[in-house]
Amino acid sequence: MTDILVIGAGVAGMTAALYALRNGKNVTLLEKNSIGGQIAESPRVENFPTIKSLSGVELADRMFDQITDLGVNFKFGEAISIEKESGIFTVHTEFEKIEAKSVIIASGVKHRKLNLPNEENLIGHGISYCALCDGAFYKDDEVVLIGDGNTALQYALLLSSTCKGVHVLTLFDKFFGDDRLVQAIKQKKNIKITHNARLKELIGKDKLESLVFEHEGEMLRIDTPALFVAIGQVPDNKIYASLVDLSKDGYIVADENLTTRTAGLFVAGDCRTKKVRQLTTACGDGAIAGTNACTYLDSL
Amino acid sequence: MTDILVIGAGVAGMTAALYALRNGKNVTLLEKNSIGGQIAESPRVENFPTIKSLSGVELADRMFDQITDLGVNFKFGEAISIEKESGIFTVHTEFEKIEAKSVIIASGVKHRKLNLPNEENLIGHGISYCALCDGAFYKDDEVVLIGDGNTALQYALLLSSTCKGVHVLTLFDKFFGDDRLVQAIKQKKNIKITHNARLKELIGKDKLESLVFEHEGEMLRIDTPALFVAIGQVPDNKIYASLVDLSKDGYIVADENLTTRTAGLFVAGDCRTKKVRQLTTACGDGAIAGTNACTYLDSL
Repeated sequence: MTDILVIGAGVAGMTAALYALRNGKNVTLLEKNSIGGQIAESPRVENFPTIKSLSGVELADRMFDQITDLGVNFKFGEAISIEKESGIFTVHTEFEKIEAKSVIIASGVKHRKLNLPNEENLIGHGISYCALCDGAFYKDDEVVLIGDGNTALQYALLLSSTCKGVHVLTLFDKFFGDDRLVQAIKQKKNIKITHNARLKELIGKDKLESLVFEHEGEMLRIDTPALFVAIGQVPDNKIYASLVDLSKDGYIVADENLTTRTAGLFVAGDCRTKKVRQLTTACGDGAIAGTNACTYLDSL
Repeated sequence: MTDILVIGAGVAGMTAALYALRNGKNVTLLEKNSIGGQIAESPRVENFPTIKSLSGVELADRMFDQITDLGVNFKFGEAISIEKESGIFTVHTEFEKIEAKSVIIASGVKHRKLNLPNEENLIGHGISYCALCDGAFYKDDEVVLIGDGNTALQYALLLSSTCKGVHVLTLFDKFFGDDRLVQAIKQKKNIKITHNARLKELIGKDKLESLVFEHEGEMLRIDTPALFVAIGQVPDNKIYASLVDLSKDGYIVADENLTTRTAGLFVAGDCRTKKVRQLTTACGDGAIAGTNACTYLDSL
């Protein structure tokens, strides 16, 4: 049995593991997708204290290397169910059963989808949620990006270097990201911006061919092989519903002490209710959840 | 007039500056003592995500370099008074008057003192609050360290390498720090540990010569030229009392949103009420306070 099971190897989960390992605890870290979570999709990180600029993948690698040195027990797999009985948590993944004295949920968020009829069919065939992963496939093309936050702004800059041109559609009348990024985008000659766009239709059978959006009352069509979607994230906490309180948006309800209504079950990072979701606040959460889990174990 | 004045160039203050600068704001950073604040006194930092090991000074340097690149306006000086009139904050230092539209208090904490009669006289003459700064002055000596947390443990390890021997006195019956550090200390042959020690007297006129402590009912005396004190920190928030609420211990009352009862005045880091005071939680606070200050300015 592991002392602490951390679910999610994003920045919050890896920081929680770091603190718990340094406290001498046995820590298992479970990840279903990629080390680093969301940050692994970020082409360039410039707002992490002490680091002027590096890729999200490199940042994640450094954190993973740090906890590997300290002896973390890493497992690939997705948490499918969780229960607590006689003080022991049992988490089932698609591969195995993991028992733990304490659990830290750091499961992050997943990409928000457009909810358009043809979307599911075209994911991976023209629709992408990760410019870093897929931008290079379209180097001779004019691609479309939809979104208005920092992720969208970073994606636009990346795609403007990678692709022939980028048409950015925003849902509202402005960008909601760092002013530096907004200024950088405005200086790119191959980026076209259309604010207040309403995406209506995705056209294409086996792959994306064009899309239709409404703008100032008009229906407009763009022929493009690629649509990058960066319209935010949503949590994915359903399996925890019997042990924690969920907000109406599906986030795990917690204040900065990161406790839940189940003793020994803690939460950290983007999957919980909070206002500022940043790398630094994910690290802060990880430190608090890791520390609290150790205190809980020491009190048993 | 500056957009945002950050008081304190510790980890919280520098992170707040980083976020505000990246948001395109004009930021002035005021520090009375040393860049990095408390962390600058830490010989080795191993719990900052992405960095396996470096000195606190180097960590602080990297952060300062990062915000210098972004154009922070740095000033040396101590905030002596603060007032808000007609929406503008005025902070006086010993050298000048600084006007700002928004202020982030990230003033940290100061060393807790022993409150013994001879203490003030002997500071800098045998009594030190920083092993990193002063340990090397006593390389041929047996020194004494008092404290039981992570700082004390790190100091003990550092002093055991630097000095001939270290006698560690703890106030309680055990250490309250990382298990890894406790184990490391126990393996050092030149470290002697006495738990449950009660320091009673500091002897010496121009410099420390010996000290007296009570242990299990006995009064014991140690001749030593150096006493390192690592018994915690206390806040120093009196000048803000008219604009914020202070807890009975003197911390600025705030939850993780980091607002105070004065619009435009935010708080970050160790100077506020919180449970886990770590580098990572200071960074998280800095990001939130910096972001909130920008939102406040944008709303004016």
